[in-house]
Amino acid sequence: MLNSAPGDSLVNHRLLLAARPSAIPGPEHFTADSLPARVPGAGDVLLESLYLSIDPAMRSWMRDGTGYQQGIPIGEVMRGGGIARVLQSRADGFAAGDLVQARLGWQTHPTIAARYLQKLDLGLGTAEDWIGPLGLSAVTAYFGLRDIGGMRPNDRVLVSAAAGGVGQIAVQIARIEGCRVAGIAGGPQKCAFVRDELRAHAAIDYKAEPNLSAAIGRACPDGVDLYFDNVGGATLDAALEHLRQGARVVLCGRISQTHAEEAYGVRNLGRLAAARGRMQGFLVFNYHDRYDEARTWLAARRRDGSLQQRLHVLDGLDQAPRGLGMLFRGENTGKLVVRLATLAPTHS
Amino acid sequence: MLNSAPGDSLVNHRLLLAARPSAIPGPEHFTADSLPARVPGAGDVLLESLYLSIDPAMRSWMRDGTGYQQGIPIGEVMRGGGIARVLQSRADGFAAGDLVQARLGWQTHPTIAARYLQKLDLGLGTAEDWIGPLGLSAVTAYFGLRDIGGMRPNDRVLVSAAAGGVGQIAVQIARIEGCRVAGIAGGPQKCAFVRDELRAHAAIDYKAEPNLSAAIGRACPDGVDLYFDNVGGATLDAALEHLRQGARVVLCGRISQTHAEEAYGVRNLGRLAAARGRMQGFLVFNYHDRYDEARTWLAARRRDGSLQQRLHVLDGLDQAPRGLGMLFRGENTGKLVVRLATLAPTHS
Repeated sequence: MLNSAPGDSLVNHRLLLAARPSAIPGPEHFTADSLPARVPGAGDVLLESLYLSIDPAMRSWMRDGTGYQQGIPIGEVMRGGGIARVLQSRADGFAAGDLVQARLGWQTHPTIAARYLQKLDLGLGTAEDWIGPLGLSAVTAYFGLRDIGGMRPNDRVLVSAAAGGVGQIAVQIARIEGCRVAGIAGGPQKCAFVRDELRAHAAIDYKAEPNLSAAIGRACPDGVDLYFDNVGGATLDAALEHLRQGARVVLCGRISQTHAEEAYGVRNLGRLAAARGRMQGFLVFNYHDRYDEARTWLAARRRDGSLQQRLHVLDGLDQAPRGLGMLFRGENTGKLVVRLATLAPTHS
Repeated sequence: MLNSAPGDSLVNHRLLLAARPSAIPGPEHFTADSLPARVPGAGDVLLESLYLSIDPAMRSWMRDGTGYQQGIPIGEVMRGGGIARVLQSRADGFAAGDLVQARLGWQTHPTIAARYLQKLDLGLGTAEDWIGPLGLSAVTAYFGLRDIGGMRPNDRVLVSAAAGGVGQIAVQIARIEGCRVAGIAGGPQKCAFVRDELRAHAAIDYKAEPNLSAAIGRACPDGVDLYFDNVGGATLDAALEHLRQGARVVLCGRISQTHAEEAYGVRNLGRLAAARGRMQGFLVFNYHDRYDEARTWLAARRRDGSLQQRLHVLDGLDQAPRGLGMLFRGENTGKLVVRLATLAPTHS
């Protein structure tokens, strides 16, 4: 399936991990280089990266060998998933112009074995949909609420980091499924987004509330059946005070703890016990066999207009390190992505 | 169904709640009185209490209206379950000499409506079995391990308060079901009991260990699939450090926190999330419809000798307040009960 061969003249710009951060990562932890794009061998595909997803899990990959995946060696390309266009294929089933998702790494023109690529079904959504409401953040929200959270219609649902990549989808799925949803976010802009665009029933600005638990109590006067936690720490502790009987707590993320100097001590587990509640962690990768189910559901809600998305777009590979810092400082509204190229029509 | 009528001459000795404890309860929180036993009306049964069960939940009943059940009003008989013999019945289905279990209260000769009584099936076990391995503590261990904990053969199981009423049964059920079991208990005597009589694979003396987490690591070198927690607090925190992927934490009790001046802050919930683990509380009463299933299983293991029990027996109603203090100081080994009368053969 050899198409035209632009590989020889293409430059692959890359960002390499240069140092392991002790606090919030930024540009100082990366170095750039540029190499000729690797000419694809048999079974390989040369890609042009379009979007890179910026995700909290990246922080753990920057550590040395810990976490649920191996750490990235110093001097290697930063790991990260995204959406790309096929420039040249030497693999069956892929042709120039196809859109794929893959673990591209932070590079403009990766050459990757085809078995690591998934071709995007553009019948389900656009490339922007695939990085957003059909992407892994959205799929995470779907399985977290349904399978881990046991979401039921009329549940009182509380979502933290409600304006973030996973949170914005979680708020909407719960609302679409007939739940009463309150979202926690930082600052008036994000809260307006949660209330007006995501159409949560209530938004809590944790930065403006001297007593988060009291604010949750006002936003959720009947308590919480399902707490979808992207934050951990003191926010989790406050949410536990409002659990209803049989409540479920989904441990999806703990971004408040990623850079905490000392782990926060959660005092209200007695509330979980008294509520006969369940608290559970999960990894979306365990649902790999069911991604299609999630995407079919999400795409239908995207088509009928009930599911909104916001991408927070940074332009250019060199913005990726800054984006990672923004994520951990809570400076993004919506799903944070880096755009490397625009989707001009391809010559087929 | 009127039998002989001893009620007129019988004295009912009672212990009444006199003050709400701020710390560990004891004799100073109760007063005694004695009244003629109440002559049973239609539908009532006059009982002679044989055993009273001393349970951690009693502490919450002594509070003012909080907890999962209403608090006991000052001046009322202390609430508590136990085993009794029918002296006189004015209810269908009950006759003098029958053994029953009920919420007797701390009194020697209660008169109770028959609908609140359950006749003991002596085909399943003796009266001592019904206060021990067929009692609610044992049934709690059964459903906690199986339904909440999702126990599977070969699971690495860790049980705290392993020498206590619930713990001693949990250790044995897990062992009988083919798990590898480690028990945490306080002091060499309890640990010998856990190892030699309950036949746990390992016993951890938390009083002798400067670093409980390290001790758990030595006792459970491959980690923990199922942690059955009767203690909460720092013990829970230490156990979380050893969770295996997919681990389950059963929140059965939190006796370490009942009298803590300040709630302990659990720092290791990140381990639960990273292990994709589940932590869940429950009340045995939610399994009311399935008590027979548990008791049939427990009785069979009792008959074949695989399930041991130890009752820690205090004699006399006046010992009940002291027993409650012993429970919270961890001074009992086995199921703590107060014996009010011995099971002399009844004249039928």
